[in-house]
Amino acid sequence: MSAFAKTDLNRVKRVPDRGHYDKETIYPIIDEATICHVGFVADERPFVIPTIHARQGDTLLLHGATTSRMLKTIQQGNPICITITLLDGLVMARSVFHHSMNYRSAVLFGQGHLIDDPEAKMEALYTFTEKLIPGRWDDARQPNATEAKATSIIAVPIDSASAKIRMGPPGDDDEDYALPVWAGVVPITQRLTTPLDDPRLTPGIAVPDYLTRYIQSRS
Amino acid sequence: MSAFAKTDLNRVKRVPDRGHYDKETIYPIIDEATICHVGFVADERPFVIPTIHARQGDTLLLHGATTSRMLKTIQQGNPICITITLLDGLVMARSVFHHSMNYRSAVLFGQGHLIDDPEAKMEALYTFTEKLIPGRWDDARQPNATEAKATSIIAVPIDSASAKIRMGPPGDDDEDYALPVWAGVVPITQRLTTPLDDPRLTPGIAVPDYLTRYIQSRS
Repeated sequence: MSAFAKTDLNRVKRVPDRGHYDKETIYPIIDEATICHVGFVADERPFVIPTIHARQGDTLLLHGATTSRMLKTIQQGNPICITITLLDGLVMARSVFHHSMNYRSAVLFGQGHLIDDPEAKMEALYTFTEKLIPGRWDDARQPNATEAKATSIIAVPIDSASAKIRMGPPGDDDEDYALPVWAGVVPITQRLTTPLDDPRLTPGIAVPDYLTRYIQSRS
Repeated sequence: MSAFAKTDLNRVKRVPDRGHYDKETIYPIIDEATICHVGFVADERPFVIPTIHARQGDTLLLHGATTSRMLKTIQQGNPICITITLLDGLVMARSVFHHSMNYRSAVLFGQGHLIDDPEAKMEALYTFTEKLIPGRWDDARQPNATEAKATSIIAVPIDSASAKIRMGPPGDDDEDYALPVWAGVVPITQRLTTPLDDPRLTPGIAVPDYLTRYIQSRS
């Protein structure tokens, strides 16, 4: 893999040491996150909408109803910014001033276009489904023509991107280390927990193995 | 409390049944979330930046370094959109098409201004700290004049807002309920876990009780 050029668009300005521009760092953040926040401009105002995403190589996929205003604005080719944030911990310093968060975030810039080709569209729906729950595509009923038509898939080639990462213990001012105040990190984790049957589930249908394995891998 | 007027700006257009406009619904989402995603426009492009926030009544507070581009853009009075998302579950339907997420999101619109008054600024820093870890303000070393000066606090009166909420089991097409496919919800939780001492912690300083209690309340 390679890296994105550092430009005025993607440069991490605050605490530049936390900035990363290589795909090896940025893409795993995208892939680990379940949702992203999509920023676009309409009527000269900013809008930020949460949605799920999936990555295909250097392209981010978004999807939604064909009637969605967000997708309509994006498919017109307007510039968008997609931000993904994973929270890792509360960083507790001895001084209030040096309190912080541990996090990994990625900020992506690009312009989207509609995927019209039915085969590419089904491939994208497969990618979304398998990212959300690996193994689900072959188990669930796959989309029919009407459903595929009701879904817009937008491909956003990632033109520019950067990651910003903070990890590790707090950093206090030298003279504060002697203070009798506890300091450290409280980890934050996002977990999948025990699945709840649909109240209308046909009796006798068990939670599938691929789901149990996936929950274990994220719990 | 009351509700925000439903306008073209904040109206939930996709699945309007999931839209809420009352503060009783919107404000707890803001307060539960650790971070928000702030959208602003610069050079006619959208930017989305994650940051921590705190609420004081009908005002959202943001903070950061006085040199931050985001805060500079906001304090010029440009319109911003602040979005907060809490993920609650993977919704697994019998059909791929009806897969969804359970979530609670809030989208806020407003314009920010700088808080200059030193007393109001300290009050805001207190609010941030106590939101992040209740009890921390009185334990840690409080900000001195230099630190307060290095921090910008932006107040964003919430002019317009809405929440969008999905909860509960999947909704499948009638004919799909007979399929031999497991369906239900996999809950997603964000938890605080066992605190890690700073490697430079003075021996003998224990994790404070207020922190242990807070972690228990969020684990």
